[in-house]
Amino acid sequence: MKEKVVLAEKFTLFDECWTPKILGELNDSYVKIFKAKGEFVWHRHEKEDEFFLVIDGELHIKLKDQEILLKKGEFFIVPRGVDHMPYAPQEAHVLLFEKKEVINTGSTASDKTVENPEWL
Amino acid sequence: MKEKVVLAEKFTLFDECWTPKILGELNDSYVKIFKAKGEFVWHRHEKEDEFFLVIDGELHIKLKDQEILLKKGEFFIVPRGVDHMPYAPQEAHVLLFEKKEVINTGSTASDKTVENPEWL
Repeated sequence: MKEKVVLAEKFTLFDECWTPKILGELNDSYVKIFKAKGEFVWHRHEKEDEFFLVIDGELHIKLKDQEILLKKGEFFIVPRGVDHMPYAPQEAHVLLFEKKEVINTGSTASDKTVENPEWL
Repeated sequence: MKEKVVLAEKFTLFDECWTPKILGELNDSYVKIFKAKGEFVWHRHEKEDEFFLVIDGELHIKLKDQEILLKKGEFFIVPRGVDHMPYAPQEAHVLLFEKKEVINTGSTASDKTVENPEWL
């Protein structure tokens, strides 16, 4: 039997922020979620575009020359090669769509780097 | 300036059902939305998995041996090669994620086939 995914349920399964969890795969990409609070790290992905959809709360994405504020039901695609730094003053819940080889901190090694995200 | 996308706004820009609209592209995929009401057509995509996330309302996806009911905030990935038939008793708003070459009715030519979806 194939199963649907209830996003709200998945967000109850973990507390930590900035640790992407894999919920599904299609083609060469993963569907992931993460919780955001505070600042992430400046980084970029040289070869992959990255999709952020806010499920709950508000996520800011700083770029070098502008800042995107994403509220619930809003998405933004960070193009490949573009430096970005997500942050969230209050906890936010985010759905990510990205190629399987993407590492969360991209070009920037950090204590927030997660090399092999957990499946939920 | 790069722009975010507000899903609720995009759904106000068209009325017709089963005509996917492109909202963005990343890597080799498009982010699309569509409105669903009534029955679509049985079809499959031989080489591409397809992601459906319900933004509003309820979408049913019939498979040959089971049926998935997706409510708001729930997603399902139809694996490549799997026959499926989406339907919605009441209007539903859906976000799609699929490879650029995917045609909505897959292997089944139909009056619902949209070869070149419009960008919104």
